[in-house]
Amino acid sequence: MSAPLPAAVRIREVGPRDGLQAEAPIAVADRAKLIEVLVDAGVREIEAAAFVSPKAVPSMAGAGDVLALIQRRPGVSYLALVPNRRGAELALAAGVDGLSVTVSASEGYSQKNVRMSVSESAQEAGAIAILVGGRVPIDAVVSCAFGSPYEGDIAARKVASLGQRLLDGGATSVTYADTTGMATPRRIAELLEVTGPQVGLHLHETRGTALVNAYAALQAGVTRFDTSIGGLGGSPFAAGSAGNLATEDLVHLLDDLEVRTGIDLERLLAAGRLATGLVGHDMPSRVAAAGPRSRLAIS
Amino acid sequence: MSAPLPAAVRIREVGPRDGLQAEAPIAVADRAKLIEVLVDAGVREIEAAAFVSPKAVPSMAGAGDVLALIQRRPGVSYLALVPNRRGAELALAAGVDGLSVTVSASEGYSQKNVRMSVSESAQEAGAIAILVGGRVPIDAVVSCAFGSPYEGDIAARKVASLGQRLLDGGATSVTYADTTGMATPRRIAELLEVTGPQVGLHLHETRGTALVNAYAALQAGVTRFDTSIGGLGGSPFAAGSAGNLATEDLVHLLDDLEVRTGIDLERLLAAGRLATGLVGHDMPSRVAAAGPRSRLAIS
Repeated sequence: MSAPLPAAVRIREVGPRDGLQAEAPIAVADRAKLIEVLVDAGVREIEAAAFVSPKAVPSMAGAGDVLALIQRRPGVSYLALVPNRRGAELALAAGVDGLSVTVSASEGYSQKNVRMSVSESAQEAGAIAILVGGRVPIDAVVSCAFGSPYEGDIAARKVASLGQRLLDGGATSVTYADTTGMATPRRIAELLEVTGPQVGLHLHETRGTALVNAYAALQAGVTRFDTSIGGLGGSPFAAGSAGNLATEDLVHLLDDLEVRTGIDLERLLAAGRLATGLVGHDMPSRVAAAGPRSRLAIS
Repeated sequence: MSAPLPAAVRIREVGPRDGLQAEAPIAVADRAKLIEVLVDAGVREIEAAAFVSPKAVPSMAGAGDVLALIQRRPGVSYLALVPNRRGAELALAAGVDGLSVTVSASEGYSQKNVRMSVSESAQEAGAIAILVGGRVPIDAVVSCAFGSPYEGDIAARKVASLGQRLLDGGATSVTYADTTGMATPRRIAELLEVTGPQVGLHLHETRGTALVNAYAALQAGVTRFDTSIGGLGGSPFAAGSAGNLATEDLVHLLDDLEVRTGIDLERLLAAGRLATGLVGHDMPSRVAAAGPRSRLAIS
């Protein structure tokens, strides 16, 4: 019906960072354990920590300790989010394999969240790249890429041009994030028409569209997706919820479409059960709740 | 990227029947009111009741009273589910505009749920059609069309051949139902390759795939979908949940894709709030919880 789907995709697991960030603090050893179990399930890129102020984000305290504790596995990239040069220095000292930096495409959101203009924030990303000097790759995450609650739709050309500016400023790759759950297949198509498919996507389930957006992107040739174990992140059961696309739900879909991820779904579901125990509440992943479609009733 | 999407789709709202069926009984007047509010929002086909044993399904008791109480609007089809000839007689006496009859594609499911073989169940559907004698259209709903928890995947040819048998037996149209949430875009494509796009789809959110399946079907030219206000139906918050595709979530997506439904999203959301009040608990619709993407923050 349409062009063949990619044979394989790269999944960046962001649960231990983006997911746990929104939860009550969890012991460093438990965070390291969760990362190891996810890697055992086949995850090859994982946001392990954020080097942010522990005062501002208590649940990310001890980022260096988490990275020191993990039994590193060859072929796996252990990544960290950094908001500034100080964070980048700490992350490099902790031996991360790559960094994420976030710059919002929305002026309103940028001012509200980091008290910088989009341009100032892009400059800081460039300063981080100079500091890193090519020692590890830097993924620039463009937040509010599919719309902002302050300005509504942001033109695809404007969003893509911010992505290009970040690449020009030293980022190795760009991921477009649907921070507020405003992406739709139409918005995805509009952006990809400008950027081409060599981008990462970070999708949210706020309006139930994460999987349909991933599918639309896959049809357009995108092969990099962020997901979070269990759909951790935001407060998915509250009104205006903002959960990440659940790793289980995407892997379940991709398995059925015969798109390789390298991740074993049953072991991933076990990792999800560990994560559920750690955070102490149910998670939004539907596949975690219902089980994979291949799991039949015992009659 | 792919063929253009259909310009318009027909939505059959099943909340007052399929949705409320799973809830504690609600007063007849409230059920009639909900139907009227949904019609006011632009719904043109609505399953208003099921003529089933009130002992077996207490929440569907008073089906005739619901239909008698509704202020009928021209151009709207008020439909009922009937399990047998007795139900069909009662539904016709109540002046319904059309009937739904369900036949499972899964032997295991059919035996477990209606204590008949698939073949016996198809025969009963044929007997209903003879009784109705063309006075109103009959939609045959093939349940477990995309897999069964008892037998796993059921071959598309087998499912489609059951659909054809039901058409040959007097049904006016066929809807394929993902009763147990096992549909995926691959399974949807496999079935539609055999049936063509002139079918209805009844999708479930059990594994988070309802919207992506609807999108895949839309790309293949399908223009008839069942949805339920709020995603009512099943027990969506329990493990193994089985909510219907929420009307709000599909209309929200279709609005953005510029596929016409004739339904006004804001009025639909108001109907959802009424339904939430009637059932007394939150509903799974994500758009109901988060609001439409067009609703911006007040800064």
